[in-house]
Amino acid sequence: MYTICNMNAEIICIGTELLLGHVVNTNASFIAEKLAGSGIDHYFQATVGDNPKRLADTIRAALTRSDVVITTGGLGPTVDDITTRIIADVVNKKQALIPEGAKWLRNPYGTAPGLIIEHKSKIIIALPGPPREMQPMVMDYVIPYLRKKVGAAGIIKSRSIRLIGLAEASVDEKVKDLLNLSGAVRVGIYAKQGEVELKVMAKAKDERSANAEIARIEKVIRKRLGRYIYGVDRETLADNVAGMLIKGRKTIAVAESCTGGLIANMITDVPGASKTFIEGIVSYSNKSKFMGLGVKQETLKKYGAVSPQVAGEMAGGIHKRAGADIGLGITGIAGPTGATKAKPVGLVYIALSLSFPSPRKRGKRESTKTIVRQFNFLGSRVEIKHQAAQAALDLLRWELL
Amino acid sequence: MYTICNMNAEIICIGTELLLGHVVNTNASFIAEKLAGSGIDHYFQATVGDNPKRLADTIRAALTRSDVVITTGGLGPTVDDITTRIIADVVNKKQALIPEGAKWLRNPYGTAPGLIIEHKSKIIIALPGPPREMQPMVMDYVIPYLRKKVGAAGIIKSRSIRLIGLAEASVDEKVKDLLNLSGAVRVGIYAKQGEVELKVMAKAKDERSANAEIARIEKVIRKRLGRYIYGVDRETLADNVAGMLIKGRKTIAVAESCTGGLIANMITDVPGASKTFIEGIVSYSNKSKFMGLGVKQETLKKYGAVSPQVAGEMAGGIHKRAGADIGLGITGIAGPTGATKAKPVGLVYIALSLSFPSPRKRGKRESTKTIVRQFNFLGSRVEIKHQAAQAALDLLRWELL
Repeated sequence: MYTICNMNAEIICIGTELLLGHVVNTNASFIAEKLAGSGIDHYFQATVGDNPKRLADTIRAALTRSDVVITTGGLGPTVDDITTRIIADVVNKKQALIPEGAKWLRNPYGTAPGLIIEHKSKIIIALPGPPREMQPMVMDYVIPYLRKKVGAAGIIKSRSIRLIGLAEASVDEKVKDLLNLSGAVRVGIYAKQGEVELKVMAKAKDERSANAEIARIEKVIRKRLGRYIYGVDRETLADNVAGMLIKGRKTIAVAESCTGGLIANMITDVPGASKTFIEGIVSYSNKSKFMGLGVKQETLKKYGAVSPQVAGEMAGGIHKRAGADIGLGITGIAGPTGATKAKPVGLVYIALSLSFPSPRKRGKRESTKTIVRQFNFLGSRVEIKHQAAQAALDLLRWELL
Repeated sequence: MYTICNMNAEIICIGTELLLGHVVNTNASFIAEKLAGSGIDHYFQATVGDNPKRLADTIRAALTRSDVVITTGGLGPTVDDITTRIIADVVNKKQALIPEGAKWLRNPYGTAPGLIIEHKSKIIIALPGPPREMQPMVMDYVIPYLRKKVGAAGIIKSRSIRLIGLAEASVDEKVKDLLNLSGAVRVGIYAKQGEVELKVMAKAKDERSANAEIARIEKVIRKRLGRYIYGVDRETLADNVAGMLIKGRKTIAVAESCTGGLIANMITDVPGASKTFIEGIVSYSNKSKFMGLGVKQETLKKYGAVSPQVAGEMAGGIHKRAGADIGLGITGIAGPTGATKAKPVGLVYIALSLSFPSPRKRGKRESTKTIVRQFNFLGSRVEIKHQAAQAALDLLRWELL
């Protein structure tokens, strides 16, 4: 046993399906993230098919520049065990089916075991290709094994801070100094469909120091961007909103037209949603709007189904019908058809109807407030549905704050 | 201008975020798929960070084994234009900011243009990293340019045949001979969450011959697996079912408990869904089940909310309420809480209530049929919701066939 300081690992993904573009390579990002979290340097990834010569060349090249070479794929009977055979070739320099000094790694979710080979101050780790087999093996065997090897060389931790309601350029401007940090703590910015993620990464000698560094930067970010932040790491906007509703013991019901059930689906994805979510109605016809939600026929006739008036009556209707604390109504044009000159694809109205307990008689709902907002989204039908649902949850979030 | 036969391309993705595992590399699979579709061989992908020496070494190594080297990322002002600078270095062998003989590629969706450099019988193409900028440039410039270079060397086409309701092993057994083909036509099998995909790939001299080869194999697959096939390529199960409903001029309404709006959301993702989808109710409380759907209180009391009886009454209730041709009811335990010994997480009941026009008086709905099925799914809350929604759509599909 030996210990490598500043260990340097390389990932080789093996599979013709990757070269044909049939599969997106999630193995590389999964292993990369775990290596980064363990303070193991990682500068290179390669993807190759099942051609023996190219695979052997790739492994040989990797061994010249990296301490650890991790392969995924090409194991098991269906692919003729090419990886094991080639590693044996590269390592032993003689014909053998299994590399000398190899240790098997148990694969609880599949038939092909993994391999660890320690070979002249280098380590080769061969893992199966299917993510559901590879991922537990990385977590259970590979990372603990490499952490032991790397000793106390330090770790990298990261935390994602998630924002909604501000454009990437505005966020960028407010944290420009942080984005230019170049020391042991760095901040990256990523944007997707109206949301922005700030990723804080800290390299430190141990987890406690890394956490302290991240907390210091997070405090600065929160001071500057405060209420635009809805969550951290894997938390979704629905997690955040449902969490606030449950904590505040408030119930909600939603009446959806253009989002077609997506808002209900997002809220009910959150474990424990049944504590706050009472009812949802997906109202795709005028009949359903007036029969199910009590939207007035004259309102539908006068203003049309996509109007602030109908959104407001939908919110009020579901509010009353479900006996919830909050009613949410949404109507719009998701496209690609249904638009007119005055009402283009992407036009969406979102309304909230809220009850307030009377200040004198506690518990009795006496007053009701209705808010209606107009939005104009761009994109495909599915993208407009997604943006509209997120905007509705964000409107709700601001009301709950 | 020169033409390369049997052109061989390599992809280099540049970005520290890829090495930290913050981002899944979808660029490599996107470009790989387009290369395969154009008959351009592709044996190697590499991912590197923004270290100048490692990037230069990687590009040099790529040029020794490939005719075309395509890079993504590392372009534009924010990253100090490292890619352009390094390519200039590698190509010109003298200090320069822009490689000699470079042609700029317009980037309609961003600020950093791409580059094409023809250098001693080799081609280097540098593209920006963000997928929404890179993808149109590949489709509009890179692929037409390479197709011209490759001349009449042939193309690869593929077609995905999508199945539901059969386990991977059963599909495998029925098409084992096809999975072992090794000529110009090949078939691959991929499985995910209860669904199976058979991918047929054909290499031929032109598109027509490739299509003919694919059609020949597809015919064999359809003969053996017939009704388990719900779609091809990017078609979803909801596309298939909504398409059948629209074509058959049938309307549908859904009453969801455990799926929480997901079925409504899937159906309303399909453009034109408003022609068939009338109403959805997400019934998360007993109150909503008997007030909104007319489920009897004694049924709820006697059998519980998760029971075949309640599923049946939900389907019947929404069927009648919405005045649709078909009512779908679903109730179950998505978890992680709410399970009992008799009713474990993953237990789901799905019911359909169907109207038939009376054979004598056409158009009058006289008879109604109700079907109820029990399922037991495994997985997380979100996975159980997904599997339950797909099973409901599949049940509907079999009814419509």
